[in-house]
Amino acid sequence: MDMLSNEIREVLGRVSTATLCTQLFKRGFHNIFMRGVSALHKPGRLNLVGPAFPLRNIPSREDLDVIEVFQDPDHPQRKAIEPAPPGSVLVQDCRGDKTVACCGSILMTRLKVRCVAGMVADGPVRDSGAIENLEFPVFCAGRSPLTNLTSHHAIDMDLPIGCGGVAVYPGDIIIGDVDGVVVLPRHLAGEVAADAAEQEDMEEFILGKVRDGAFLRGKYPANEETKRHYLNWKRAQNSDGIA
Amino acid sequence: MDMLSNEIREVLGRVSTATLCTQLFKRGFHNIFMRGVSALHKPGRLNLVGPAFPLRNIPSREDLDVIEVFQDPDHPQRKAIEPAPPGSVLVQDCRGDKTVACCGSILMTRLKVRCVAGMVADGPVRDSGAIENLEFPVFCAGRSPLTNLTSHHAIDMDLPIGCGGVAVYPGDIIIGDVDGVVVLPRHLAGEVAADAAEQEDMEEFILGKVRDGAFLRGKYPANEETKRHYLNWKRAQNSDGIA
Amino acid sequence: MDMLSNEIREVLGRVSTATLCTQLFKRGFHNIFMRGVSALHKPGRLNLVGPAFPLRNIPSREDLDVIEVFQDPDHPQRKAIEPAPPGSVLVQDCRGDKTVACCGSILMTRLKVRCVAGMVADGPVRDSGAIENLEFPVFCAGRSPLTNLTSHHAIDMDLPIGCGGVAVYPGDIIIGDVDGVVVLPRHLAGEVAADAAEQEDMEEFILGKVRDGAFLRGKYPANEETKRHYLNWKRAQNSDGIA
Amino acid sequence: MDMLSNEIREVLGRVSTATLCTQLFKRGFHNIFMRGVSALHKPGRLNLVGPAFPLRNIPSREDLDVIEVFQDPDHPQRKAIEPAPPGSVLVQDCRGDKTVACCGSILMTRLKVRCVAGMVADGPVRDSGAIENLEFPVFCAGRSPLTNLTSHHAIDMDLPIGCGGVAVYPGDIIIGDVDGVVVLPRHLAGEVAADAAEQEDMEEFILGKVRDGAFLRGKYPANEETKRHYLNWKRAQNSDGIA
Amino acid sequence: MDMLSNEIREVLGRVSTATLCTQLFKRGFHNIFMRGVSALHKPGRLNLVGPAFPLRNIPSREDLDVIEVFQDPDHPQRKAIEPAPPGSVLVQDCRGDKTVACCGSILMTRLKVRCVAGMVADGPVRDSGAIENLEFPVFCAGRSPLTNLTSHHAIDMDLPIGCGGVAVYPGDIIIGDVDGVVVLPRHLAGEVAADAAEQEDMEEFILGKVRDGAFLRGKYPANEETKRHYLNWKRAQNSDGIA
Amino acid sequence: MDMLSNEIREVLGRVSTATLCTQLFKRGFHNIFMRGVSALHKPGRLNLVGPAFPLRNIPSREDLDVIEVFQDPDHPQRKAIEPAPPGSVLVQDCRGDKTVACCGSILMTRLKVRCVAGMVADGPVRDSGAIENLEFPVFCAGRSPLTNLTSHHAIDMDLPIGCGGVAVYPGDIIIGDVDGVVVLPRHLAGEVAADAAEQEDMEEFILGKVRDGAFLRGKYPANEETKRHYLNWKRAQNSDGIA
Repeated sequence: MDMLSNEIREVLGRVSTATLCTQLFKRGFHNIFMRGVSALHKPGRLNLVGPAFPLRNIPSREDLDVIEVFQDPDHPQRKAIEPAPPGSVLVQDCRGDKTVACCGSILMTRLKVRCVAGMVADGPVRDSGAIENLEFPVFCAGRSPLTNLTSHHAIDMDLPIGCGGVAVYPGDIIIGDVDGVVVLPRHLAGEVAADAAEQEDMEEFILGKVRDGAFLRGKYPANEETKRHYLNWKRAQNSDGIA
Repeated sequence: MDMLSNEIREVLGRVSTATLCTQLFKRGFHNIFMRGVSALHKPGRLNLVGPAFPLRNIPSREDLDVIEVFQDPDHPQRKAIEPAPPGSVLVQDCRGDKTVACCGSILMTRLKVRCVAGMVADGPVRDSGAIENLEFPVFCAGRSPLTNLTSHHAIDMDLPIGCGGVAVYPGDIIIGDVDGVVVLPRHLAGEVAADAAEQEDMEEFILGKVRDGAFLRGKYPANEETKRHYLNWKRAQNSDGIA
Repeated sequence: MDMLSNEIREVLGRVSTATLCTQLFKRGFHNIFMRGVSALHKPGRLNLVGPAFPLRNIPSREDLDVIEVFQDPDHPQRKAIEPAPPGSVLVQDCRGDKTVACCGSILMTRLKVRCVAGMVADGPVRDSGAIENLEFPVFCAGRSPLTNLTSHHAIDMDLPIGCGGVAVYPGDIIIGDVDGVVVLPRHLAGEVAADAAEQEDMEEFILGKVRDGAFLRGKYPANEETKRHYLNWKRAQNSDGIA
Repeated sequence: MDMLSNEIREVLGRVSTATLCTQLFKRGFHNIFMRGVSALHKPGRLNLVGPAFPLRNIPSREDLDVIEVFQDPDHPQRKAIEPAPPGSVLVQDCRGDKTVACCGSILMTRLKVRCVAGMVADGPVRDSGAIENLEFPVFCAGRSPLTNLTSHHAIDMDLPIGCGGVAVYPGDIIIGDVDGVVVLPRHLAGEVAADAAEQEDMEEFILGKVRDGAFLRGKYPANEETKRHYLNWKRAQNSDGIA
Repeated sequence: MDMLSNEIREVLGRVSTATLCTQLFKRGFHNIFMRGVSALHKPGRLNLVGPAFPLRNIPSREDLDVIEVFQDPDHPQRKAIEPAPPGSVLVQDCRGDKTVACCGSILMTRLKVRCVAGMVADGPVRDSGAIENLEFPVFCAGRSPLTNLTSHHAIDMDLPIGCGGVAVYPGDIIIGDVDGVVVLPRHLAGEVAADAAEQEDMEEFILGKVRDGAFLRGKYPANEETKRHYLNWKRAQNSDGIA
Repeated sequence: MDMLSNEIREVLGRVSTATLCTQLFKRGFHNIFMRGVSALHKPGRLNLVGPAFPLRNIPSREDLDVIEVFQDPDHPQRKAIEPAPPGSVLVQDCRGDKTVACCGSILMTRLKVRCVAGMVADGPVRDSGAIENLEFPVFCAGRSPLTNLTSHHAIDMDLPIGCGGVAVYPGDIIIGDVDGVVVLPRHLAGEVAADAAEQEDMEEFILGKVRDGAFLRGKYPANEETKRHYLNWKRAQNSDGIA
């Protein structure tokens, strides 16, 4: 998995997932938002951003998924924790099962120590109180104390999966903020980041006008005159920045 | 749409939706509470109150609902933002779709500037972090970054709609608090407000007794003696108020 | 209902429901976690713990469940509030109905005054803002202003019920924390509490190692060497405590 | 449980559940139709009709609901089969669980031999192919091969229950046809049967007119003239019957 | 509403909805299939085909939707039955409510007598046994005996609606077969019909080869050689037809 | 994948899935029945039986899953059709998506020609009318005309998957009858088949007694005397068979 450039990562960390969805909608992508997945932690000023490292779970089976399997240091759930690269996002396919946790605080702590960027799953986590206080971004489907073996059997990693109804290929860029989690196809990261930054500048300008009492008509969406005003405002801002 | 009297609006702003539901239940109304709709903002001491201004969305269609439609200043989603009267509540029928946002922070800001009382929808909103901080009451079905065009086509306004499984006729009174959103048929607003205020006084009196250790029997529900005590207490309170 | 010993109650108050689920999984119990039930209050440092006192609701019927029934001081919903023993947990079977509240703040206040330990239901509550501030543990399925009569008819108490998809026999131990609510069969309370306390000590030791950068392999799960180190650490801690 | 008169049973066997719902709607009953319950057998010309004999299931528990319990001839599931009176309808509360069967063909055969009128459940049955061919009315929530112990613990009988979201009191009249299953409160059986029969006569008359090309206006609903024509038609029919 | 040409109607009556979905997918349409709607009758050799005549239902309200409203010959539910043009399809928006019927056999009989092509709804019907035998195409969401007033208030007709999650504009072409119901935007009817017919010819040719044991590779999808063989086969067939 | 012996296949073809579930329950297996999957065809006297050949689908993506991909003869959906061994069952993981078909009649015909035993999926099929008439066992989640590309991207085969909430490892034995589809772990096939055959003999004997009017007590479950009678009956039957 080739890593994200710092520049693109920085931009994707400050634009909203809403803006990214608009940019992807323009390019014909509709199914990019994970359903039923939200921030467990209080999302901060910066988004979760990183390339996906997928872990796939299938339903557990009573003879295979007994408590003793955890004695095996090569159990796939634990094994997936070590190879997930620093800066990546561990993404778990839990088949949308909302009842059983996919992991708990010890594994999340290990991910944090290893500088993995965050964890995303379409299932709940356990020890959720401890995880909330870990200062580690976790987006999941709520909370459950049940051990993963109750429903899940970790089966393989680094293969394409579904999560929250969305395709996740290894290396796709995962972005999470307070609205939820979006999957950005890897090859579009650069151009979408650039256009998203531009869109947000324009919307900041428009929002200022709306706050000051402007009618929507002509402002949102912007007509030619508003676009001109925006460009002037932006130029002014930039020279301010330079000065 | 004739506006609410200030008096009724004031009462409906401080009684709870729970009390209103009891009053409506007494009058034979069971289906008055919007399912799946809750406060995005932290509800304050006063309720959201106002007559409904409905906006109807139907499913989007791929050839009609392209990003370019937003260039049209008469696009119904944006158009509905301007005519919603000050003091009213914009109510959106999103058919209970929990995946796609019905609006974002620029439109909510415009509603606030125009002194619309709040927004209610049975679908999510985007830019939800910004909207939470807007000091503008929004009750909705969670958060999603997806643009409304992904599922919705705003089609008409000021017609009767369904929202959260409840009929909303233009001008019906919308009340929202931490328990959720209730629809009060317009013609009942006055009498229900009066009876609700009376019920809450009585329950405040009973709650005091319960806090002090009273048995429920005779107190809740109140028997004749308790009702007498309540009337004395109320008279005392009122003369205190006068004094 | 024989009460819990103070010792077991104390242990169950500080181990997590996640640890209890692992202990019950080891003993062959998979269906012990209530689906769709979460803390309304902000859970504190200590869990809700207590033997279950069940209250069963069946669907309401329009001729039986009229507002006038509340004039009857023997109405089962109110009646159940008085016999629930101090220290017990009132558990309501609401058949998973998420739309209609099963109770409000006056009854919760009475339970609190009577030193009942808490209330658990697989349906919502009303007056939820007041209940949040009551310093009384309530685990439920969200919020709704609708009076219980809209869907529920309280029918009997102290019989086995289902709640959140789990069997609850009178006297089973209910434990609730931020992950949710677990039902511990009465006869297992002692041994599960002891093993859970031991497990948490071990996991605290391991978590310390992981925080310090240890690899998972050999630590989690613990191999023989780690177990030896843990026993030394524990001995040291205990003698510290004595010193 | 006092039995239905033959006369009322005969009428309820030939009017439709749709007509019964209209009659109950007129009397203020809205929640009388079991959701998710339909005929497994091909319903015949005559409805299933009989007073309810309820059997309640709660969630199973892994230590109690082991295969060995079936060695107990007093196991409640089997025990309920013998006391259900001839002519009654065994109604099972399965909490709407669609995954696990509540019974199979041997128990259904025993009910048939004992002249029980039929079985209704808001869960599936197993051996569904054999039951379809049994000439015994079964209304349920589909098919599943899983033994009831997988989710259900039969706990008591002849108590009020919920089934398909509807209250069922022992002795309430259960009526099932191709549209589904309706619960008729016991004390209304006589008057509702009489009015339903009258309504169906009128609708047969109207349907004849509609088939012959009549406009709906004036016919459906019937205006005064149509009602007169109907009465004449009915008188003629009756004298035909007599002649 | 301008009617369909007989030619296009004939073609759309014999191609499958599966083929139509492929043709619409090629043109960028994904959301064209009504979820949860299936044939009540046994679909025949020919599809239901006709332009949509929409009827919109909103949730009922207890004071407005009383049984007496049916005395009004202008009640919208009944009124919609008369103006639906011969050859059209009455399409009802029931908001996906699966519990309450939207209509019964008298209204369906009137539609049939008036030569309306069929009825489609995302809710159930009542008198479903009689409707099955009516030789009138009805696609709906199952069966329920409950009168429409229990949940529905017919509010307006001939406006755009949603049905089964799909946008339906007045005049859009509705096609129903055993796979379900598809909505074909009006302006595409001609070109899609032509391409669908061509696709089905090709697939009939391929299916013949597959039945005879051909490998999929080169046949399905067809490579250039297979396409040539198909064209020869088709030419041969046509000259056979002519001869 | 080693094939099933003819003997075991024969036994598994005539015992019911209900009996298999009882045998697996006895061995501690609860999660073996596919939820939401039922026979599209009318199941015959013999079950579908065969080792699983899994095909995994992930969510589709708009830039990858365009109609042109079908020009690729190596497209995984089509590719999976050829290597599925004769006698095996193609099992598709559709993530429980009920809206979009996973395959149509041409691929099912190819499977049939290739002597694959049947197809199982937790999603719908298209061309369902043609498939019903194919005399090829298909168990799926209903019908939909939408092409698989609308939601699915076939990604790999012969890996462990989930289907209908159950783990399916390559080579596990799939059995389908009118009650639905059960997954039998490969290594248990022989012993479970033998015990199931024995159980069905016993139940046939008991059913005969119940049909003749026997009380359940002592018969079902069988007490020692009944077991003795059964053994005599069986011995008699076998010698009849021999004679």
